[in-house]
Amino acid sequence: MKHVAVFGAGRIGRIHATNLAALPGVQLKYVCDAFAGAAEDLAQTLGAQVSDIESVLADKAIDAVAICSPTSSHSELISRAAAAGKHIFCEKPVDLSVLRAQAVAQAVAAAGVGCMIGFQRRFDPTFNEARRRLDAGEIGNPEMLLITSRDPGAPPVDYIKQSGGIFRDMLIHDFDVFRWILCADGDEAAWLSATGSVLTDPAVGEAGDFDCAAVTIRTHKGRLCQINTTRRAAYGYDQRFEVLGSTGLLQCGNHTPSEVVKWDARGVQTDKPEAFFLQRYAAAYRLEIEHFFACLQSGEPFKATVHDGVMAQQLADAAAASALSGAAIQL
Amino acid sequence: MKHVAVFGAGRIGRIHATNLAALPGVQLKYVCDAFAGAAEDLAQTLGAQVSDIESVLADKAIDAVAICSPTSSHSELISRAAAAGKHIFCEKPVDLSVLRAQAVAQAVAAAGVGCMIGFQRRFDPTFNEARRRLDAGEIGNPEMLLITSRDPGAPPVDYIKQSGGIFRDMLIHDFDVFRWILCADGDEAAWLSATGSVLTDPAVGEAGDFDCAAVTIRTHKGRLCQINTTRRAAYGYDQRFEVLGSTGLLQCGNHTPSEVVKWDARGVQTDKPEAFFLQRYAAAYRLEIEHFFACLQSGEPFKATVHDGVMAQQLADAAAASALSGAAIQL
Amino acid sequence: MKHVAVFGAGRIGRIHATNLAALPGVQLKYVCDAFAGAAEDLAQTLGAQVSDIESVLADKAIDAVAICSPTSSHSELISRAAAAGKHIFCEKPVDLSVLRAQAVAQAVAAAGVGCMIGFQRRFDPTFNEARRRLDAGEIGNPEMLLITSRDPGAPPVDYIKQSGGIFRDMLIHDFDVFRWILCADGDEAAWLSATGSVLTDPAVGEAGDFDCAAVTIRTHKGRLCQINTTRRAAYGYDQRFEVLGSTGLLQCGNHTPSEVVKWDARGVQTDKPEAFFLQRYAAAYRLEIEHFFACLQSGEPFKATVHDGVMAQQLADAAAASALSGAAIQL
Amino acid sequence: MKHVAVFGAGRIGRIHATNLAALPGVQLKYVCDAFAGAAEDLAQTLGAQVSDIESVLADKAIDAVAICSPTSSHSELISRAAAAGKHIFCEKPVDLSVLRAQAVAQAVAAAGVGCMIGFQRRFDPTFNEARRRLDAGEIGNPEMLLITSRDPGAPPVDYIKQSGGIFRDMLIHDFDVFRWILCADGDEAAWLSATGSVLTDPAVGEAGDFDCAAVTIRTHKGRLCQINTTRRAAYGYDQRFEVLGSTGLLQCGNHTPSEVVKWDARGVQTDKPEAFFLQRYAAAYRLEIEHFFACLQSGEPFKATVHDGVMAQQLADAAAASALSGAAIQL
Repeated sequence: MKHVAVFGAGRIGRIHATNLAALPGVQLKYVCDAFAGAAEDLAQTLGAQVSDIESVLADKAIDAVAICSPTSSHSELISRAAAAGKHIFCEKPVDLSVLRAQAVAQAVAAAGVGCMIGFQRRFDPTFNEARRRLDAGEIGNPEMLLITSRDPGAPPVDYIKQSGGIFRDMLIHDFDVFRWILCADGDEAAWLSATGSVLTDPAVGEAGDFDCAAVTIRTHKGRLCQINTTRRAAYGYDQRFEVLGSTGLLQCGNHTPSEVVKWDARGVQTDKPEAFFLQRYAAAYRLEIEHFFACLQSGEPFKATVHDGVMAQQLADAAAASALSGAAIQL
Repeated sequence: MKHVAVFGAGRIGRIHATNLAALPGVQLKYVCDAFAGAAEDLAQTLGAQVSDIESVLADKAIDAVAICSPTSSHSELISRAAAAGKHIFCEKPVDLSVLRAQAVAQAVAAAGVGCMIGFQRRFDPTFNEARRRLDAGEIGNPEMLLITSRDPGAPPVDYIKQSGGIFRDMLIHDFDVFRWILCADGDEAAWLSATGSVLTDPAVGEAGDFDCAAVTIRTHKGRLCQINTTRRAAYGYDQRFEVLGSTGLLQCGNHTPSEVVKWDARGVQTDKPEAFFLQRYAAAYRLEIEHFFACLQSGEPFKATVHDGVMAQQLADAAAASALSGAAIQL
Repeated sequence: MKHVAVFGAGRIGRIHATNLAALPGVQLKYVCDAFAGAAEDLAQTLGAQVSDIESVLADKAIDAVAICSPTSSHSELISRAAAAGKHIFCEKPVDLSVLRAQAVAQAVAAAGVGCMIGFQRRFDPTFNEARRRLDAGEIGNPEMLLITSRDPGAPPVDYIKQSGGIFRDMLIHDFDVFRWILCADGDEAAWLSATGSVLTDPAVGEAGDFDCAAVTIRTHKGRLCQINTTRRAAYGYDQRFEVLGSTGLLQCGNHTPSEVVKWDARGVQTDKPEAFFLQRYAAAYRLEIEHFFACLQSGEPFKATVHDGVMAQQLADAAAASALSGAAIQL
Repeated sequence: MKHVAVFGAGRIGRIHATNLAALPGVQLKYVCDAFAGAAEDLAQTLGAQVSDIESVLADKAIDAVAICSPTSSHSELISRAAAAGKHIFCEKPVDLSVLRAQAVAQAVAAAGVGCMIGFQRRFDPTFNEARRRLDAGEIGNPEMLLITSRDPGAPPVDYIKQSGGIFRDMLIHDFDVFRWILCADGDEAAWLSATGSVLTDPAVGEAGDFDCAAVTIRTHKGRLCQINTTRRAAYGYDQRFEVLGSTGLLQCGNHTPSEVVKWDARGVQTDKPEAFFLQRYAAAYRLEIEHFFACLQSGEPFKATVHDGVMAQQLADAAAASALSGAAIQL
């Protein structure tokens, strides 16, 4: 039996806590949150206790922690948990600063604990099936990747101000998908060009960010990746990618709430995509936390490591710099 | 807190037991099965006790039972549970004999307990969304229903021999879908014609059954329904229907394991449907048992009652008689 | 060079005349129509002359005639053209009376001329591709056929009164598709059951017809076919079929004006089907007339003969009788 | 009646000649080609005469010429035809040199003749329907455009050497689509970044070209466009784009030979896209030449002018320069 504490009882903390509490062989022991009410509510629902970080890290019975607190606390909590000998599941990103993220990676390595980063898209049934088919050689060598990654609406400008910007906040997932899909053989980004615009709300621009962006990456082996994003897709949460290989193409489409098709005088209509990430990635969140504990049990490596977190952060930094300067960047 | 016992620890029993054990406010107390090993295994997994039917029915703490035992035991167990004052969830069918099913319905009514029949398709997210849109008037008045309901492969001939035949065993679900979709305003079947063939395996015919069939129903209001089925669809489990209304059409497609599309020299390929009913109706099984306990709590009527079970059985009987004689039947 | 006359300058006559006039090696010489204006207009557009049937049949230079006049004139014109030694392309149906259609078939055979019936669906690129794949064995032996054949709106009641009814007027094409797809190995219908309703307009019922219908056919080899139709599909002209084989399924979908998909707050929307038969079967009309002259040239048999016309008519008669009596029919 | 000459009797010349010869009010009088055999064959098929350019331009009866000769001859032929007072339809590109293309545009303007460039994608039924819906405001203001434009296989390296490279040869169409879709309100490209790779055949690289490429464009109004291409898509000719607007998304899919869907043990399979541009754009080629003559008749402006040809060429030049240098370009 693995005993676990969850740091952060907000939206994503509740999901991870609920999912891990349902796993056989895993017991949620503590919930910590700066807001006592949130921690209490979640702890009660799942039969756990409220605690604080210091006590949790001091409790020798705790095997692992799940860090679901605000981004700004991630690197410190990872370091402290590593120092305390706890295995770590941490929501993305490791840190908005690549340097701090790298330091954290070293701390984790030094402590010899496991640290998995919550790039849940690697566990999405559709995306993961595409990865499996790539591995099976179904489309030969991967050559080109197109990612469409769009939110249904912008968060409050106050959030945007402290988010690190669209490249670090939203596209961090897509930079990880790029590496996961195109760089499985050790390839990495060699050249990157990004640009962005403010088309939906001037307040986003005043906050120093873009609300839509386009990124192109070329790898050392010459593979090409294009990513497009907007914070406001009027039709919903759009999460697709397609990878071109030497013998075929794999497309990953959106998931929908139902398979109903309506035909009427206007046309033939199917569902919009699942509303937002909580719906679209519900299975992925469940499967990633299951993977985390399965790896702790078996000793196999995580599918998404703190190194992956650092590498995605570097690409986000490069994209932000490129979009600001208008110049392409050699990596 | 509702305390529950499950009768039957086979494939479908395990599903219902697992789903209800995860519901807040519901406690699985007992598991009963003629095979002690199956009961013990399931009880242990879910933290319940092994018991026998008599003891369960005598236990005043038990609020409800879920009957997942073989078809031949359904009517007796419903009657006994009703007499003991327990609420009942029972897998389809109520009984292969309409007369016995009707007697059971009367016993349930006399006992004043709730009895829901496991027509899980009414809870399938896609089918249920179609029902919701019909209610919302999205396609006007329903006029015609086409049901494709195909299994990926035939069960053993020994099973077929005691199954009641393709109309009572497989199409019972589709007769219920017909009534659920076309007869929501009190309409019912008025005329039925059925035919069947043995095309896949002569042994099915020797067992007195068909392996494919086609049924047409006309209602009192003149609505038309066509159902087609086969026990062996080489491409998998095919569960679709489409309902034509006065202002449009609603189609319900299959569910698939992923949304990956592969393009190669042969064509553009999407997933086969989910493998079989356990996969396709996983959500439906979860939602129907949730509905059962929600109704017990709220006092609202079940979406699928013992009366619905009787009516579907009558249609199955009529179809079997029509296919045997080659003559249409007035109901 | 083949010299041709067209009888009938209405909607379908114009299509056939225009298509055949564009064929290399074919010259449209005459157009005949009871309405002189229609004949003149079409003749002028295509550089042909107006004439009358007697003169055309007397002109030794005429190799073939295309009969596109009203249904009631078909059998007489076929007989006269055959007697005059002309090859014949005739729009469906041969005749609303099976007896007269059979007599016509004998007259054609006796005259030794070619007579092709305009079952254009056999030339539709999608339907024909399905036939090709069946021939290639892609889904093994055909076992079941489902045909959805729906018009976007009912014709005037005056037309319906003299149309021969929904089974002879609309479903004649579908009975031919049934034989073309399921009976390529010499199999034929053995049992048929049909039913119909009046759901859209009581005037249709007062005219002695149905506006929607459902037919089931079982062949001598046990293959099953279900056909459904309505005169009023609110979303347009719906022409689909799917054939189940022992190793797979082939579905034939509708054609659409464009491949545009619109995503917005309501859902994801594709085009409605092509508006009506002139649009949907534009390619089929072109290809069938090309086939007619190619067969005249090569001596190969037509894909749709006067015998096929008689057989489809027999099924239409049987369906009409079954729907009227409510009883299934042995053929 | 407009009298026309076609310069060039190769693949594309035959298509335009055949299409214009079938138009009412248009007569193909002359065919010219350096290869006498090709000219003779085409002229004979369509009932025209073989001639030479000088004679054609001297013939006062000739209203218009269609230039379908090799790219290197376009600018000279346009200039000469303009000087001779002939209206001009010219295949893309105007010239591989922007300076020469601009000079040609001035010559055309000075001569006061019409000059339409063969950007046939503007006439594709699917793409044109998307343009119509944009005009109708169906998705609000256009913000982002993604173009996938892939060939099924590379041409001979000898062709590639003189083609002007992938940006000028293949993507010229896509640069025009970008302007047609995103710049209808007078917006234009402000910033462009391109990159390319050689992944399919080293010989392409040795010829100084790329075989796959990725381009990003930002307009003055901040709209974003991403284009991806490869010369070798193993699954065929892939021609799609999608445009994101403030209230929705319009996707343009591929066209397919049929609407057959096959379900078998491997999955659910639809057709590959139409094989190559002759098939995919068959309707577009027909509609653009019809448009050319309709505009000559009505005096309305062409949908694709010599100015559009120049602008697309400028973007192709910029992309080629950017891909070579690795640096983004301000336009």
